[in-house]
Amino acid sequence: MLAAVKQTTTDLIGMLAGSLTTLSFVPQVWKTYRRKSAGDFSWLYVVAYTTGLALWLWYGLLIASMPVILANAVALVLLVALVGLKVKYR
Amino acid sequence: MLAAVKQTTTDLIGMLAGSLTTLSFVPQVWKTYRRKSAGDFSWLYVVAYTTGLALWLWYGLLIASMPVILANAVALVLLVALVGLKVKYR
Repeated sequence: MLAAVKQTTTDLIGMLAGSLTTLSFVPQVWKTYRRKSAGDFSWLYVVAYTTGLALWLWYGLLIASMPVILANAVALVLLVALVGLKVKYR
Repeated sequence: MLAAVKQTTTDLIGMLAGSLTTLSFVPQVWKTYRRKSAGDFSWLYVVAYTTGLALWLWYGLLIASMPVILANAVALVLLVALVGLKVKYR
């Protein structure tokens, strides 16, 4: 019983962590879209982060982990949008 | 033997993914430090992402996963630096 509660708490912390790091890009993409400015972003950052997300997604598919797949698929869509805005607004 | 090779490949993809999403913040922090400008960053993004990393680190400690602990500890240091630069340069 106590072990199950501990497991549930651990899972909740992991899910909250994944939701935050993934969904944090929603206000960022929105801000970049409105501001029409992306000069403060490093190209290396956006390209390396996007590539990393694609690899995370691949990893999630290989280990068949739905949370890893879901979090990284959503993040990848947001990052591709951010890269597109960075290409447009530099 | 084939299963072991497949496991090693999977691990390598995961490690490469973690290295990329974590280390991508090195050029970003460096660029923000040199450019002295962080106005393109959304406050919600930097705060939510940093909070998410702290929770990932906590999750890593709870499940005793050294890769999760290591990747998120390094990323957290970089994000705290980015938040500091964002406070300074807005």
